[in-house]
Amino acid sequence: MERHFDQELAELKDALLRMSALAEQSVGEALKALVQRDSALAEKADAADEAIDHMEMEIDDRVVKLLALRQPAAKDLRFILMSMKIAAELERIGDQAVNIAHRVLKLNEEPQLKPFIDIPQMADLSCRMVHEALDAFVYAKPDQAQQIIARDDNVDKIETQLHRELTSFMLEDPHTITRAMNLIGVAHSLERIADHATNIAEEVVYLYEARDIRHQLART
Amino acid sequence: MERHFDQELAELKDALLRMSALAEQSVGEALKALVQRDSALAEKADAADEAIDHMEMEIDDRVVKLLALRQPAAKDLRFILMSMKIAAELERIGDQAVNIAHRVLKLNEEPQLKPFIDIPQMADLSCRMVHEALDAFVYAKPDQAQQIIARDDNVDKIETQLHRELTSFMLEDPHTITRAMNLIGVAHSLERIADHATNIAEEVVYLYEARDIRHQLART
Repeated sequence: MERHFDQELAELKDALLRMSALAEQSVGEALKALVQRDSALAEKADAADEAIDHMEMEIDDRVVKLLALRQPAAKDLRFILMSMKIAAELERIGDQAVNIAHRVLKLNEEPQLKPFIDIPQMADLSCRMVHEALDAFVYAKPDQAQQIIARDDNVDKIETQLHRELTSFMLEDPHTITRAMNLIGVAHSLERIADHATNIAEEVVYLYEARDIRHQLART
Repeated sequence: MERHFDQELAELKDALLRMSALAEQSVGEALKALVQRDSALAEKADAADEAIDHMEMEIDDRVVKLLALRQPAAKDLRFILMSMKIAAELERIGDQAVNIAHRVLKLNEEPQLKPFIDIPQMADLSCRMVHEALDAFVYAKPDQAQQIIARDDNVDKIETQLHRELTSFMLEDPHTITRAMNLIGVAHSLERIADHATNIAEEVVYLYEARDIRHQLART
């Protein structure tokens, strides 16, 4: 029995939401591993990446099948192509969670350098951006996507300020260098996650408003 | 007059090769700006990113039109979809060239920390990987793609060794911290470029050998 195109689209959306949930969870666990100094949890975030990678392949396969069998027209075609792009962004978010987990394993080998305040805040902002960008894509909310793009600056600002603070730690006491560099690495990964969320949001605005705003904003 | 599908495919390939040439040139100029301490050239690499971003949009548009109007079958469909993915990788290589250029502008404000040997070597390896990955895609050479994947380790090894060397510089003399961190940033960008080339090469193997080797290799 042949299934309906609408149902196949709904399944594609569902797969993207599940993939996003996995990626967000992975980032959340890597952060928890940092704050609670729990290296076993960091190992877990590392292992979760495989499931995220498989989700990307699953979504790619769905896209190929949908295009080959359904030959969708303009709007559906763009939606389906963007699903593939968004899956690629989510896969990279998963990679950043792994990077964070690796840094956490190293950080947990030494005493804590400073209280964790700005990094969890960055993680919270970035993960919410990812979550809401997927929501905007699946439920066709270009206005929400536009808002997300504007929030990327907040994450960048925290990273810049943290970078400055950690550099001064290093200058004052070379014993802090390894830890400061790993914390800078964690912050950089979180900033990258916010960038991926921004990329998704830009695609959403493009899809639903048919305006190409990609690449208008300076990227770093 | 309607053009032939084959010609449209040839134009798509040509657009990808042009985009890759721009990205490689941008990385090359950012590196030259480092080695020759030429900040004007670094500004130029920064400005070139816009052209690369436009190429990605051009390729995406070609893909949408090809799929909508030609409704290609299995093998062509996969080729066309991968063109879109590869354009996204090239766009990110362009972003890394910008990151390098920004680091170079900062590095050129201070005396040179050490002779540039390993960084130009990394750049050379990474750019050749990109060039050959595109060649393998456009001219259907899965064996060449397989070789490129194997070479990613060499780039990683140089980065690890350089990271260690620069960390010891920082530990010995805090005055080197800013420069060492910027050089670590340049090396990291070059390592990311090799990763993007590896991603492209993995897609090529998948496309031409129909084996999914993506995500089998650990990524960092």
